[in-house]
Amino acid sequence: MDQHYMQKALDLAKLGWGKTRPNPLVGAVIVKNGEVIAEGYHHYYGGDHAEVDALKKVNFSVEEATMYVNLEPCSHYGKTPPCVEAIIKSNIKKVVVALEDPNPKVAGNGIRILKNHGIEVVTGVLQEEARKLNEIFIKYILTQQPFCILKTAMTLDGKIATYQGDSKWITSEDAREYVHHIRNRVAGIMVGISTVLKDNPRLNTRIANKEVNHPARIIIDSKLRVPVDAKVIETATQQTTIIATTEKAPKEKINQLQRLGIEVMIAAEEEGKVNPKDIALKLGQRGIDSILLEGGGTLNYSALQSGIVDKIMYFIAPKIIGGRNAITSVEGEGKDLIKDAFTVEDISIHKFYRDILIEGYVRKG
Amino acid sequence: MDQHYMQKALDLAKLGWGKTRPNPLVGAVIVKNGEVIAEGYHHYYGGDHAEVDALKKVNFSVEEATMYVNLEPCSHYGKTPPCVEAIIKSNIKKVVVALEDPNPKVAGNGIRILKNHGIEVVTGVLQEEARKLNEIFIKYILTQQPFCILKTAMTLDGKIATYQGDSKWITSEDAREYVHHIRNRVAGIMVGISTVLKDNPRLNTRIANKEVNHPARIIIDSKLRVPVDAKVIETATQQTTIIATTEKAPKEKINQLQRLGIEVMIAAEEEGKVNPKDIALKLGQRGIDSILLEGGGTLNYSALQSGIVDKIMYFIAPKIIGGRNAITSVEGEGKDLIKDAFTVEDISIHKFYRDILIEGYVRKG
Repeated sequence: MDQHYMQKALDLAKLGWGKTRPNPLVGAVIVKNGEVIAEGYHHYYGGDHAEVDALKKVNFSVEEATMYVNLEPCSHYGKTPPCVEAIIKSNIKKVVVALEDPNPKVAGNGIRILKNHGIEVVTGVLQEEARKLNEIFIKYILTQQPFCILKTAMTLDGKIATYQGDSKWITSEDAREYVHHIRNRVAGIMVGISTVLKDNPRLNTRIANKEVNHPARIIIDSKLRVPVDAKVIETATQQTTIIATTEKAPKEKINQLQRLGIEVMIAAEEEGKVNPKDIALKLGQRGIDSILLEGGGTLNYSALQSGIVDKIMYFIAPKIIGGRNAITSVEGEGKDLIKDAFTVEDISIHKFYRDILIEGYVRKG
Repeated sequence: MDQHYMQKALDLAKLGWGKTRPNPLVGAVIVKNGEVIAEGYHHYYGGDHAEVDALKKVNFSVEEATMYVNLEPCSHYGKTPPCVEAIIKSNIKKVVVALEDPNPKVAGNGIRILKNHGIEVVTGVLQEEARKLNEIFIKYILTQQPFCILKTAMTLDGKIATYQGDSKWITSEDAREYVHHIRNRVAGIMVGISTVLKDNPRLNTRIANKEVNHPARIIIDSKLRVPVDAKVIETATQQTTIIATTEKAPKEKINQLQRLGIEVMIAAEEEGKVNPKDIALKLGQRGIDSILLEGGGTLNYSALQSGIVDKIMYFIAPKIIGGRNAITSVEGEGKDLIKDAFTVEDISIHKFYRDILIEGYVRKG
């Protein structure tokens, strides 16, 4: 039953997707005599934490109740008073926690305080699920670098475009719609200038009947070739646009873009190109905790080589197009030998109506 | 319960893999009072059919019993007397059939005869599974053309070799082992001459502790470049080797190969190359009911273009190697537009320890 209620807490936590940043996603469920008596979650950054949100919904004693929460309750004063305080005051009997606070400096503090006040605490229920749910939060709080997800859509034979460059559409509507849900969860979408020149995308989040988060557009543009009438430039006053370039970029164009509301980020250079590692560091400092990399093969390879990619999402359409010169998802020079391949671990598979999504994590070091 | 016993019959049928050709794979289970009293299957071509094999195991009356069999019992004299005769003689009460005979000329005959003799007949139980189990038999009996399976092993980013040509090994041992089980089920393995020149493979079936079927090796070699010391040539007296070439091939080399025990097949030419459609027709006439196409990108594309590919098996390893010039599973010129892609239907996914297998059927016409 612990798992059942914790799953409920995890599901509640997801209602905060895209709105709690840089806070984690947290849900809480209060159960008394085998019945759920209150549910809560962290709605948005600055709002009540999940534990408090749930406690506020109960207008009677929770003395014999158990709270399920997917993250260790906080014990420090931030935007709101610490949750442990509210929990202790509530006289709740027991707290079940999925995951300890990922910050090693405070991990266990909240649990210890609860125990010191005679509250029974159980940890580790659906821990792995809880860790994945907050993988962005965890990486960012520990490294101040964005969690980077490489997303691509390819045919079964590994192509993201035909030899003529056609890529509309590889995957079906339901898979493409799902990408907008992912966009809603991240702080930035990164593409290369080639994608802007070729497709002139808006790179926003489109989900029917839902208030969504529009991530910052991050364009890697070493030579600052972006046309001022590109959609990402024209809409820069409504949705943040960051252009990452090198010191060699023409000053005049930089000024022009800045006047149009674009943030121009100067990154270290590597063989004439923006160094992805450096830009990730700068984006982290800028408060970007997560990037959805929707690059072409060249950018994807240099991102992988630089070590910034944490997760991959491969949408695979049951189509075959062939072509020695067709485009693939990861190009660049490539590895010499199979044994030097990037290894993807902890694979999971999701089947859409037609397409398949393979997710996994890039092994580091 | 019908499905349960039929699944058992299907599982028994599989024990005949690689040995019943050109006969179908058939299993039979006899159930009386909710108990399995006999099991049988078609062991090898020329041996007892499954129904008879099962009936022979019972030394008491089957009057109240039901037989589950994955294919309609035969009603014609072939290598053995018809199964319907044996079933009628047995006085069995009921026969449950998964699939009607795929040959439209005789479909329903066996069932009709059984019914005329007062035996209750139920059809269609696990029909789809039964159809897939005998997909080779079905295509071959209806068209006299081989059922062709395109098998490939690629990285997650769609490469079958690095830009340097390294391909050892993309998939893990368990997936590679599984390929030998597939080889055991087919009449021929087809590769291009490039594969012979590059890898010098044996193209045999290696399964520990099992007597296996070694398919005919079919090498597509338009210019007859095969070296006489290639393993497929050296072992031609132990395992059939068919070399498909064009009329332009040097007569002397043809004679030399024939003296070494190679079958040289002259096929129609298409832009200087062997026409895959024509070679498939000739292989069908030669009694080859199934081909496992383990080609490189060029052969795979021309096979797909020619329409001979029925099924695909994509082994995907959770690795990324990148490389604009790396090799992909289907190359050639390729389709101009995504909308003209080959469509793969009826997808199924199998997960190995590390790798993923995606299977599906190429939409025709």
